[in-house]
Amino acid sequence: MTSAPPTIEIIAVGTELLTPHYQDTNSLFITQRLNDLGLSVRFKSIVGDGAEDLESCVQTALKRSDWIFTTGGLGPTEDDRTREAVAAALGRELIFCPDILHGIESLFNKMGVPMSSSNRKQAYIIQDAEILANKNGTAPGLWVTEKEQRIILLPGPPRELEPMFAASVWPRIQTERSFYQAHKVLKMVGTGESSVESLISDLHPHDPRLNLTMLSSPGQIEIHLTARSDHNENEAKELVEELAENLQMRLQPYLFSTAGEELEEVVGRSLLQKHMSLAVAESCTGGLLGHRITQVPGSSRYFLGGVQAYSNQLKIELLRVPEQQIIQYGAVSAEVAQSMAAGIRNLAHANYGLGITGIAGPDGGTPEKPVGLVYIALESDHGSVCERSVFPGNRDGIKRRASQKALDILRKQLSSSSREDAERLDG
Amino acid sequence: MTSAPPTIEIIAVGTELLTPHYQDTNSLFITQRLNDLGLSVRFKSIVGDGAEDLESCVQTALKRSDWIFTTGGLGPTEDDRTREAVAAALGRELIFCPDILHGIESLFNKMGVPMSSSNRKQAYIIQDAEILANKNGTAPGLWVTEKEQRIILLPGPPRELEPMFAASVWPRIQTERSFYQAHKVLKMVGTGESSVESLISDLHPHDPRLNLTMLSSPGQIEIHLTARSDHNENEAKELVEELAENLQMRLQPYLFSTAGEELEEVVGRSLLQKHMSLAVAESCTGGLLGHRITQVPGSSRYFLGGVQAYSNQLKIELLRVPEQQIIQYGAVSAEVAQSMAAGIRNLAHANYGLGITGIAGPDGGTPEKPVGLVYIALESDHGSVCERSVFPGNRDGIKRRASQKALDILRKQLSSSSREDAERLDG
Repeated sequence: MTSAPPTIEIIAVGTELLTPHYQDTNSLFITQRLNDLGLSVRFKSIVGDGAEDLESCVQTALKRSDWIFTTGGLGPTEDDRTREAVAAALGRELIFCPDILHGIESLFNKMGVPMSSSNRKQAYIIQDAEILANKNGTAPGLWVTEKEQRIILLPGPPRELEPMFAASVWPRIQTERSFYQAHKVLKMVGTGESSVESLISDLHPHDPRLNLTMLSSPGQIEIHLTARSDHNENEAKELVEELAENLQMRLQPYLFSTAGEELEEVVGRSLLQKHMSLAVAESCTGGLLGHRITQVPGSSRYFLGGVQAYSNQLKIELLRVPEQQIIQYGAVSAEVAQSMAAGIRNLAHANYGLGITGIAGPDGGTPEKPVGLVYIALESDHGSVCERSVFPGNRDGIKRRASQKALDILRKQLSSSSREDAERLDG
Repeated sequence: MTSAPPTIEIIAVGTELLTPHYQDTNSLFITQRLNDLGLSVRFKSIVGDGAEDLESCVQTALKRSDWIFTTGGLGPTEDDRTREAVAAALGRELIFCPDILHGIESLFNKMGVPMSSSNRKQAYIIQDAEILANKNGTAPGLWVTEKEQRIILLPGPPRELEPMFAASVWPRIQTERSFYQAHKVLKMVGTGESSVESLISDLHPHDPRLNLTMLSSPGQIEIHLTARSDHNENEAKELVEELAENLQMRLQPYLFSTAGEELEEVVGRSLLQKHMSLAVAESCTGGLLGHRITQVPGSSRYFLGGVQAYSNQLKIELLRVPEQQIIQYGAVSAEVAQSMAAGIRNLAHANYGLGITGIAGPDGGTPEKPVGLVYIALESDHGSVCERSVFPGNRDGIKRRASQKALDILRKQLSSSSREDAERLDG
């Protein structure tokens, strides 16, 4: 391998990938794992099962790329033609390999079903290719070396491709590469892309070994850092850590993770560490907040549950929101959000109670109370907090931003109570 | 335009599309709209901002494709090079177009900010190209004709690309095409891909004008039908309808929509039509069912709310599940699911009460009660129903399948009560 980084191309094979219904996600997995090793992808191609189109794509790739990964088209049917196309493009034969056939036969025997004769096709390999074992399916992968070029044929189903890549492809690339890379992701909540940009505008790295990319999604900003070293892993790590520290100082109030976690994981871990419990009262989010909290395995250790108080009757009868409050201030008001938070906290005997009420739209807005208006209240021994927001976006976006904001209010309360505890101990 | 369908290629331009963080979604939009006109996409390429790589991709496309759509790379920065690359590949000049510059200047004037000098670049067009107006940004699109080939340059942001495509590209393609197409989607729940396949195996169309594609996601199967006619739209529609009717007869018990709706929309509409209300008691789904129901605008007209009874205490104190039942049968049991459904129905004064209790994993499973075990109960005036399922997949998959099954149980109850009502009227 030369020391210049190889030109890498991924060819995703499958007619379904040319419809509006399927995305090629395998290339994201492969890209992520290659990025971890300091390698970038330069071209991606998506092509159907037709033999001619497939061969033309492989030929184009052979002209411009050093490493070519193909995904899909290794199955037993007539439509699976990646082996044939790569063999034809390289001018090689397909060779029958009895060992592979025996392996496939014994797999079918184990399942107690007869092997279809079409599976015989999968026992043919490209001349001089190395076989990559498939622990989760019948199609073996192939590693083909053509002078300085490598063509790596991988199966399409992610549950076959991913373990094969981890076991047979990644370790081999890792030992062959001539440079090192380190990563760090900073995740922020409660701020926007342009605010983050203005806070860190002078910190964009000039060092060509460093890269900074900002990504945003509703209610969340991420900064992805990568550093590259030709010498050793530590140098790459130090470069990334130094930049990350400078960024963290500027972004502290918004930063919730530097370890790739979701906001609900960070909040959950903090509750667990403090032996604190949480319950939620959701109106406009309809259950999304509880759904997100319970996506975290083990969340039953701190999440007690909640009430989806969509109707006023449930707000009044279950959460004990005073009816007079709804009449006087409206169901979407700071007063009702606070009563909901206090109500669910009482009902569930929880340390923290969150209440959300708002207008998710598209109907129900007024000039005084527009679509996107959401009140979020938090009740605890530290008292009561309520924040008013007007979120942009559609129904789904407003629900997502509201659940994100609720978790952020709790996150801030948990970290300020940690500081209070620390000060008390210091004092 | 010849009567043979053109070879179509989409080139998505942008270095961010070669990272693990971004997917090219513009091509899905373009593919969908082209499919609606009976046109298929044959190649997709994804390439970064580098001039050399971009030009090589355009040259490859010019060799094999009749219609080439590029997305992205029309912005004002140094990194935006699609105009240059296409001009170079075609051997054409870039021509300065004062009208475009005036348009961009007046856009900036309206916003009250000075135009950056870099925007001047956007006023250059490929020689002899037609300009596609951009109502939502500064980058105009370009339509280039090269003998029988067309190269259509579109901006990257979807909010600029989609209106431009709808206003200037789609109508032009529609008048130029020489055939017609019709579509239909059948959506099924409560069955699997292989069961559907065995029910309809003799109905796969042999007519080359018809196409049938099956798609599956956790708890849902979809059959997408398309028909094509060289003569008129009605012929295509009739072909699709005839096939759809035959399929529907076989798939009736599982079929919930032929109009592209989600299951929660279908159930919601049925509740609304019957003036019936719903409340939910969720344990392992943590709020996902309520979240899905409230994704539908106007759901407050039939959805009253629910309880996320994650802890046993909330099951007992709020939903009035007898403590003895939890001790005797366990929290994950048919008995508790039924008590939860009855409890929330009472509390919310709802016509229908759904109760879900199960083990979403990854921990908490036993040989008798494995991860994936879920009991779902429905309480109504028609009595009580409870179903036991063991769902495959991870935590998220189990939660999704449980929410899907709950909606399906309600769907079946609603349609059987419709039949009872009809029979009563007949009698």
